[in-house]
Amino acid sequence: MLTSTHKTRIEWGDCDPAGIIFYPRYFDIFDVSTTVLLERALGMKKIAYLKAYAFAGHPLVETRARFRLPTRYGDEVSIESAVVACGRASFTIGHRLSHDGTLAVEGSETRVWVVAHPDDPKRMVSQAIPPEVVARLTHGS
Amino acid sequence: MLTSTHKTRIEWGDCDPAGIIFYPRYFDIFDVSTTVLLERALGMKKIAYLKAYAFAGHPLVETRARFRLPTRYGDEVSIESAVVACGRASFTIGHRLSHDGTLAVEGSETRVWVVAHPDDPKRMVSQAIPPEVVARLTHGS
Amino acid sequence: MLTSTHKTRIEWGDCDPAGIIFYPRYFDIFDVSTTVLLERALGMKKIAYLKAYAFAGHPLVETRARFRLPTRYGDEVSIESAVVACGRASFTIGHRLSHDGTLAVEGSETRVWVVAHPDDPKRMVSQAIPPEVVARLTHGS
Amino acid sequence: MLTSTHKTRIEWGDCDPAGIIFYPRYFDIFDVSTTVLLERALGMKKIAYLKAYAFAGHPLVETRARFRLPTRYGDEVSIESAVVACGRASFTIGHRLSHDGTLAVEGSETRVWVVAHPDDPKRMVSQAIPPEVVARLTHGS
Repeated sequence: MLTSTHKTRIEWGDCDPAGIIFYPRYFDIFDVSTTVLLERALGMKKIAYLKAYAFAGHPLVETRARFRLPTRYGDEVSIESAVVACGRASFTIGHRLSHDGTLAVEGSETRVWVVAHPDDPKRMVSQAIPPEVVARLTHGS
Repeated sequence: MLTSTHKTRIEWGDCDPAGIIFYPRYFDIFDVSTTVLLERALGMKKIAYLKAYAFAGHPLVETRARFRLPTRYGDEVSIESAVVACGRASFTIGHRLSHDGTLAVEGSETRVWVVAHPDDPKRMVSQAIPPEVVARLTHGS
Repeated sequence: MLTSTHKTRIEWGDCDPAGIIFYPRYFDIFDVSTTVLLERALGMKKIAYLKAYAFAGHPLVETRARFRLPTRYGDEVSIESAVVACGRASFTIGHRLSHDGTLAVEGSETRVWVVAHPDDPKRMVSQAIPPEVVARLTHGS
Repeated sequence: MLTSTHKTRIEWGDCDPAGIIFYPRYFDIFDVSTTVLLERALGMKKIAYLKAYAFAGHPLVETRARFRLPTRYGDEVSIESAVVACGRASFTIGHRLSHDGTLAVEGSETRVWVVAHPDDPKRMVSQAIPPEVVARLTHGS
């Protein structure tokens, strides 16, 4: 399955009065990680792949995370993301965020491929992931 | 077990280019919901209860969420939070976020009661939740 | 000129390791304050008024703020917003955020009324604010 | 005077339903830019320099920004930051954020050097910036 790694830095504004990262910021990071993985898989930026495959996005249906060690401002962290499942209209990505080589957070996101409803552009309906995308997500980089 | 409900509004800045809430913002909401529940249980604001019980906070060890329906800017939502488990040094809170009476998101947070390590204020160590707090979390409002 | 006041609470996740609000969060608050003022002026939610007046939004061209006193998590604050200027295609809103009756932050936002460019939906072009909107912004509530 | 440049990327979660960056996110970026500049000037991370100079931080007293062109998710931007003034207890940093070589946003931040009040750790009082820091901020990199 496809994997991708990128680095980021925990910033002052990501941290709370306890001096550690405010945990919702990890999901901001995971959302970026999923974008990075898909951009690498599909060979184009998100703004382009939404258009190329004429879909409305890949919102979440489920997420979970385990927090093993806190991170702090100035920490350089590495996030390894991998496709762990790919179904007809949904896929699951696992994320492992490490600091100094030690696993700090494990998370997963299950997302669904959606298009706008033909009769109501504000409703979203799931749709089969294009075979080319499935191939790229499941055959690695 | 203790329960608490509060209301908030999904704002323009919480939403993404798909026009729906950017999912990490739900965890911002859940963190507020937990604060609201604890403030009501303990009868004081967070800034006061951290001092009253001389602890460093209640960071997360695990979270999960299921997203059933998207919400959009301008949506008034209601979050019902309940203590679903309370152990020696950790507790779990379940959140149900509804819009127009329909469940949109279910989430849970498991948190640990921590103090600064006596030898290294930057390390945190778990500690037994004070009996008075356990009593208030488990005997309702 | 139109004025509007609303209240909010500074939350734990809005604050940084110094224990005070992380200043960009004030602009999140001001953006909500402008939405509140316009929703009251126009008698409908933002999701409806964007459609009713067929425009793409009111992005900023300029902002400034002076920070007089810090605020902290748990602080209940009040924001008074007023239209201070209204031109052909732009308008300026002033915000005064107070805590316990004392002014903590003063800010202003100059925004422009935009529509998508007819030949390129990703470009935005300014357009005259509809006379009905000008009337409501300048004649108060 | 000291200058520093760094790069970042505008992400999906930084953008709003209009598809452009939600403007408060620029101040998140500018706060990082100031940290980058100070870390380079002082040769250590923020977590270390707060301790080395025994101060509580450099909160803002004033900020302003002009938004010339919108940015969108996937845009790689460059931020050039420079010390534009340095007084006894405060300093001003100017930021120029560019995309594809074109200036998109200009901003400035005036910050004050503070310590906790000796009698009340929750109050902050301004204090003279250490001469060594003034020298590093005003004599460039």
